Amino acid sequence: MSLEPEVVRIDGREARAVSALDRGLHYGDGLFETIACLEHRPRLLERHLARLEAGCRRLALATDLAAVAAEVRELAAGAGRAIVKVLVTRGVATARGYGPSGTERPTRITLRYAWPEDDAHLAQDGVRVRIAATRLGENPALAGLKHCNRLEQVLARAELRDAELAEALMFSSGGRLISGTMSNVFLVHQGRLATPRLDACGVAGVMRAAVLEAAAVAGIPAAEDALGALELERAEEIFLTNALIGVRPVRELQGAPREVGAVTRALQAQLAAVLARDGARA
Amino acid sequence: MSLEPEVVRIDGREARAVSALDRGLHYGDGLFETIACLEHRPRLLERHLARLEAGCRRLALATDLAAVAAEVRELAAGAGRAIVKVLVTRGVATARGYGPSGTERPTRITLRYAWPEDDAHLAQDGVRVRIAATRLGENPALAGLKHCNRLEQVLARAELRDAELAEALMFSSGGRLISGTMSNVFLVHQGRLATPRLDACGVAGVMRAAVLEAAAVAGIPAAEDALGALELERAEEIFLTNALIGVRPVRELQGAPREVGAVTRALQAQLAAVLARDGARA
Repeated sequence: MSLEPEVVRIDGREARAVSALDRGLHYGDGLFETIACLEHRPRLLERHLARLEAGCRRLALATDLAAVAAEVRELAAGAGRAIVKVLVTRGVATARGYGPSGTERPTRITLRYAWPEDDAHLAQDGVRVRIAATRLGENPALAGLKHCNRLEQVLARAELRDAELAEALMFSSGGRLISGTMSNVFLVHQGRLATPRLDACGVAGVMRAAVLEAAAVAGIPAAEDALGALELERAEEIFLTNALIGVRPVRELQGAPREVGAVTRALQAQLAAVLARDGARA
Repeated sequence: MSLEPEVVRIDGREARAVSALDRGLHYGDGLFETIACLEHRPRLLERHLARLEAGCRRLALATDLAAVAAEVRELAAGAGRAIVKVLVTRGVATARGYGPSGTERPTRITLRYAWPEDDAHLAQDGVRVRIAATRLGENPALAGLKHCNRLEQVLARAELRDAELAEALMFSSGGRLISGTMSNVFLVHQGRLATPRLDACGVAGVMRAAVLEAAAVAGIPAAEDALGALELERAEEIFLTNALIGVRPVRELQGAPREVGAVTRALQAQLAAVLARDGARA
């Protein structure tokens, strides 16, 4: 996404600044969604809202989700192609220290960015990837959520000195393959699709779910599983997913070429149909 | 600390709001210090600055530490007794996504709060504590730092329904005792002092270091160690420390009374001397 947002709203009003007392700033006490908007509509909005709702429930954030949905739709309507980021925090502190008082009024921040330079060719060509030394701590209480505690991703991303490297894959402290810094990862082995289980850490991506749906429709066996370095090494195909990029094949891992295979291509084709249906519903 | 700060400065100027594009807000990409100011001087300032410097180095934050020190001293000078919180973030995003560009200009936020209602009697009487169900994820890359990714502490704190409970002790995902949500923990067993090693998670508290120094002066054997539920259970004395509270004995753990013993009292006495020396240096 480009650096300067076209629109920034805070609690529904155009504004560029938030209170210095917001718990989002002090503790990362919030959640976010990054939504691709195409043809004036937010893609996979229902999935984004469902994840946000689940996160709000788990963190006990009293966010007005109807207001989020309405604002995302409105921002999407105003631009043919754009990225909308929604950030909801617990709001300004109303009690001392880490503990929420329960009386906070959540802050809703929405930002619309121009769609980035066209890198759609990467869906065809694939991307170069390495493995991050930074690992992900395991915490089931936060696993799956797209929360605002992202220092691990910041550090892993900072490891990528080579601008041509698209992503860093991350393992958990326990040695399991989890995801990229900003994407989910899928492996293909002997015609079967596998993606890491996210019960200890990682973000349950909306595109990850759409890909699992596409696999089911396409009749490709798929599972969420405990995966490690061995499974990554022996995979015949590897690809990454997120809400913006869809499916991007990995064509190089740790400097070694990897094949972009038939299962990845079949899933890309099937995913297009899944996303088209989503667009028709939106 | 009271809710409404007496003073808020952003990058040295009185202000109450930060950019909605600040990476502190989006990712918790920052560090903080909470400093007790007594008699117009910040207590243990050198230790606070040393920890902040170490954190800035590990996160590659180009914070102006001399400016932090000057501002903390200035804010402390303006109030007899106060709490000063310093928050430094990587600043407004200058690149896409998690990865820092290296060209960000850090944001420095300082807040001065009135000293809270006097609860100094708790140093004598002790506090009631329970064990949190929420655990701490393990990540050596972040261990020891007082960074702004604090959702685990937020969740653990939210478990404390009983306002009379002062703190929740936290274990790591691997089952080790680490700390309270906002304090370090010490155990006494057979005359020896032990506090959890913080190489996988936890915050290396400035008061924790001062207590270890006090123990050395007092000739009390002390070690940083791997501690678990067994060590917690069999401890004859337990106490908590942080920059504001000094040493607070635990008089009840999980509903069961615990003794406030002679080693705790000896350390409180010795700590007073260590802090007085620090005050004389400041």
